[in-house]
Amino acid sequence: MLNFSFHNPTKIHFGEDQIKLVGSEIPADAKVLLIYGGGSIKKNGVYDQVVTALSDHTWVEFSGIEPNPRYETLMKAQALIKEHQIDYLLAVGGGSVVDGAKFIAAAALYEGEDAWNILAKQEPVEKALPIGAVLTLPATGSESNGNSVVTREGNKLPFSSPLVCPQFAVLDPKVTLSLSDRQISNGVVDAFVHVMEQYLTYNVNAKVQDRFAEGLLQTLIEEGPKALRTETKEDLTIRANIMWSATMALNGLIGAGVPQDWSTHMIGHELTGSFNIDHARTLSIILPAVMKVKRDDKREKLVQYAERVWGVTGEDEEQKIDKAIELTEEFFKDMKVPTRFSDVELNHQHIPNLIEKLEQHGMVALGEHNDINLDVSKKILETACS
Amino acid sequence: MLNFSFHNPTKIHFGEDQIKLVGSEIPADAKVLLIYGGGSIKKNGVYDQVVTALSDHTWVEFSGIEPNPRYETLMKAQALIKEHQIDYLLAVGGGSVVDGAKFIAAAALYEGEDAWNILAKQEPVEKALPIGAVLTLPATGSESNGNSVVTREGNKLPFSSPLVCPQFAVLDPKVTLSLSDRQISNGVVDAFVHVMEQYLTYNVNAKVQDRFAEGLLQTLIEEGPKALRTETKEDLTIRANIMWSATMALNGLIGAGVPQDWSTHMIGHELTGSFNIDHARTLSIILPAVMKVKRDDKREKLVQYAERVWGVTGEDEEQKIDKAIELTEEFFKDMKVPTRFSDVELNHQHIPNLIEKLEQHGMVALGEHNDINLDVSKKILETACS
Repeated sequence: MLNFSFHNPTKIHFGEDQIKLVGSEIPADAKVLLIYGGGSIKKNGVYDQVVTALSDHTWVEFSGIEPNPRYETLMKAQALIKEHQIDYLLAVGGGSVVDGAKFIAAAALYEGEDAWNILAKQEPVEKALPIGAVLTLPATGSESNGNSVVTREGNKLPFSSPLVCPQFAVLDPKVTLSLSDRQISNGVVDAFVHVMEQYLTYNVNAKVQDRFAEGLLQTLIEEGPKALRTETKEDLTIRANIMWSATMALNGLIGAGVPQDWSTHMIGHELTGSFNIDHARTLSIILPAVMKVKRDDKREKLVQYAERVWGVTGEDEEQKIDKAIELTEEFFKDMKVPTRFSDVELNHQHIPNLIEKLEQHGMVALGEHNDINLDVSKKILETACS
Repeated sequence: MLNFSFHNPTKIHFGEDQIKLVGSEIPADAKVLLIYGGGSIKKNGVYDQVVTALSDHTWVEFSGIEPNPRYETLMKAQALIKEHQIDYLLAVGGGSVVDGAKFIAAAALYEGEDAWNILAKQEPVEKALPIGAVLTLPATGSESNGNSVVTREGNKLPFSSPLVCPQFAVLDPKVTLSLSDRQISNGVVDAFVHVMEQYLTYNVNAKVQDRFAEGLLQTLIEEGPKALRTETKEDLTIRANIMWSATMALNGLIGAGVPQDWSTHMIGHELTGSFNIDHARTLSIILPAVMKVKRDDKREKLVQYAERVWGVTGEDEEQKIDKAIELTEEFFKDMKVPTRFSDVELNHQHIPNLIEKLEQHGMVALGEHNDINLDVSKKILETACS
């Protein structure tokens, strides 16, 4: 196990009808900015529940955060914050809304020349408004970590600070019943790949972290497809297990003390940036290719993954790895997400542009060994075509 | 899954040579009381490391916290706290020292008539001094939760408050190399039973919590005996896995959203209170008896435990359960802890006194169904004799 520091102060309220607790988590005298996306929360009753919970608070709202939240959109919130002397942000939505709220929180108290530098120059966040979250789409884990990704002109750029980690998050699995199949698919696959990025590296004998990661993978494999099936679609227990898995997948716990990869994400970001493909759908295309191209480096963990997560038995390591990759792809297909370039109408011709973008964004030494240079990324993208 | 709230704000610094971080975690102007036990930290170098880390702080020390910390001992710290205007406690030791520091922290700011009421009358803690912990014995999880147990005149009484949860904890597996075999045994068994109390109840389909619990049990089963064997005794990776398992076993995570039992602990406390038997050694005597007496209520989880934790296969549920109980007892024997009354020179004659104590302490409706009344406890104690 590697040395680590772990700190996750987000208070979680989990379960049916917990949104009512929002009011007691925000200081009574706070001026709250309620931040949300395209308005789905007005259709599924979440907005009304939040408004009721905020009945003793002073609040205004800011909506229109898009999937892959855009810098320009987020900066529009700053005028509202100044005008109403906002001192608390409440993000109500999925990962994009929470990510967006994090940038708004940091930009609001930014004292430099241009808040864009938080992303472009990775200037450290010195102060930020406090954030609470009501999660409507289990996927990114953003409700309980300090990470955020913001898009500007086709460039998806991440930033991270403990100061933007939500102080509390409400996770009510019931609100996920109104999600579309595509949103459910994307969420489960995103969470699955988050776990894989922290698990499928090399062995440092971190037994707790490995077993926790395997437990999350197994849970997502078991429960994910059920949330898409008509006969089990309304089952709240399934939704609860997915929701809690997605939070645990990226709250820092399973990644503490182990090497991490993240190459699938970094390469995937370019597919979203250039072709506007849903984040999770880029991951399901890239991950199998990473497993194939980095097979030798990841051999020990690939075998462990095959045995423990998929129950693959037998003597031959190569066969076990083949089977594990095959089963991973089948799981993605069950979740109705693409696994190849051709599934999203891309082909070899798009690779040079993606490599150029990776270079532009400094993504030239990815993976747990920092050895995924542009040549290896090209190989991964080519593998994703075949 | 049951509804739950989960909040664990303790910042963890894990790994070799992390004690040096203590200084930066405590406010520079704090007046620190360094609290420890019998002085083993002076022999194994931990005291010196802590003193170096505190070189920029004002501090005094209070030692002599015993295993099963006594109320009378803890109250002696209060004069020191007043005299030196202490405003931060640093507990350096195992669970007893951390538990003791928690009571000291609450008693220091207690405004009622008698701080004993925090335990005796379960008066809620309104204020407490902040606490940091340097852990030397992985076992109780006290370094990252708000629980404490204090003993007075043969009575072990618990209290709990988020206000006494350590703000930070340093976990350096290297410091555990100087532990005696008995301390290692006790720690591993204590952590194992903590997991079991939150796992072996009834099924609420909480897949993440179940798999996390199973992962901790497997890790303790694999690594525990190795820490006692001459050839693997000095292996830091084994110690690290045990240490992280013990923290995760009782930091609230695996118990969030699931029913909990705790009858083994409550009955075990009486064995410690009356006969001064090490806490963990009471658990290894009582748990197998609870598994046998509550076999029907716990059937589904016992079968899952047999299959997933011990890899027991086959068709017959009864045989699987028998095997799982047998393997649990074998694990305890491998860990050199007793599993029967006779192993600690007790017998049937001691049962009436223990039942009387349980009654005195209001332990008349234990277990996840509150149905372990004094008759059932008697049956459990009798089973532990046979």
